[in-house]
Amino acid sequence: MRYVRFAVGGRVGYGVLEKDRVLELDGPGYLQGKFTGTWFDIGDVTLLAPVEPSKIVCVGLNYRDHAEELRMPVPEEPTIFLKPPSTVIGHRAAIVYPRLSWRVDYEAELAVVIGDMTRNVPANEARRKVFGYTCGNDVTARDLQQKDGQWTRAKSFDTFCPLGPWIETEVEAQKLGIYAYINGETRQASNTSQMLWSPEQLVSFISRIMTLYPGDVILTGTPSGVGELRVGDEVAIEIEAIGQLVNRVVGEQG
Amino acid sequence: MRYVRFAVGGRVGYGVLEKDRVLELDGPGYLQGKFTGTWFDIGDVTLLAPVEPSKIVCVGLNYRDHAEELRMPVPEEPTIFLKPPSTVIGHRAAIVYPRLSWRVDYEAELAVVIGDMTRNVPANEARRKVFGYTCGNDVTARDLQQKDGQWTRAKSFDTFCPLGPWIETEVEAQKLGIYAYINGETRQASNTSQMLWSPEQLVSFISRIMTLYPGDVILTGTPSGVGELRVGDEVAIEIEAIGQLVNRVVGEQG
Repeated sequence: MRYVRFAVGGRVGYGVLEKDRVLELDGPGYLQGKFTGTWFDIGDVTLLAPVEPSKIVCVGLNYRDHAEELRMPVPEEPTIFLKPPSTVIGHRAAIVYPRLSWRVDYEAELAVVIGDMTRNVPANEARRKVFGYTCGNDVTARDLQQKDGQWTRAKSFDTFCPLGPWIETEVEAQKLGIYAYINGETRQASNTSQMLWSPEQLVSFISRIMTLYPGDVILTGTPSGVGELRVGDEVAIEIEAIGQLVNRVVGEQG
Repeated sequence: MRYVRFAVGGRVGYGVLEKDRVLELDGPGYLQGKFTGTWFDIGDVTLLAPVEPSKIVCVGLNYRDHAEELRMPVPEEPTIFLKPPSTVIGHRAAIVYPRLSWRVDYEAELAVVIGDMTRNVPANEARRKVFGYTCGNDVTARDLQQKDGQWTRAKSFDTFCPLGPWIETEVEAQKLGIYAYINGETRQASNTSQMLWSPEQLVSFISRIMTLYPGDVILTGTPSGVGELRVGDEVAIEIEAIGQLVNRVVGEQG
């Protein structure tokens, strides 16, 4: 099923998307929201990011083709970093190009949405801790990433974590096409089968460090072909069997 | 005033500490909680971390004496990193020594608690965005910090962010003694006047990257004298005019 979060009539709702209708839930699917009996036409609601994570855990280098592109050795263990929840935006919301950066990149990523409190889970039991998957864009100020050493500032600007358009719960993630398009032109085209660590292995690895909660998000790394965004660009992240997350880049105001 | 969060009779409450009484509030002080008219004896409640941050932003190297100790040049700009909310524990809660590390350190830090939504604030207006201050311990798996390059894993284990015992709102932070004691022995003894960037400058710097929300926490860096924790140790972080945050170190179970 496709779980959405949306704005309608000045309030926030949750629901399941069925064709062109949103069947309302009384809470997020990953918190066992129940159907209210109300529905909306998809055209009458504004989709929001489908999840409100308490944390977003990201993985640095997780695609074989991206490691080859960078001529970097495959790391022994995943390198993790965090994006703050204040980075999250939904489908069709604007990515704001910060004044502090001269080089902002897109990074198409499969986003794992956790469905259960998860601590010290083995990889072969991790799938049942996953609620579903959505598309993510790990927007990065590449100049600041290179300057700072620590990646946090480069990854933490407001609007730097588009997620959506919905959480797909009926898909397996081992072999899905993953794409980034800039103004309709293909820039990334790979497959989740290129991942060095599977989503289950990542959930397991991270759960040995920190407790994961329902709604927490893991961004599983980006394939080859990362590149620059410019003000005015439309960036689309597409993952097979999940959907397409579209955002436009705007300049910082004021 | 001293704002607390506490557990009593199976529920969580908020309040203001006056001598040995907790005057209950209907919400956190930084969200304008109002007095309920109820009070508790301090001995009848269990103090929890006084704040539930949506993000914890930490600063890498912010004390002159610590930079000298490490023989590192003073950085041009603050280096920031994040700890996830799942690291937070309160006064007297246990720090769990993770199996994945052989070297876990304490780091005494002044914690700034944000009181207002804050975006792009100049340093000279930042003080009014601060609700108050508490004691923090930026517990760090030093071996993993050195191994990983990125600091996130080393800083993100559950229980690695003791905060408390309360938020003090009637103090200015420019010149406060800051101390760490292990089993009663002094290990860190410095003063917030040694900071390279003041709390106001840090709030301003961070607010140009990400929007800060009420209850968000900034850990402002540690002075010289960081060192090792062992299972069984009692670590106390003390800040003049604020209080003393005490935690015991236990081994990881299971």
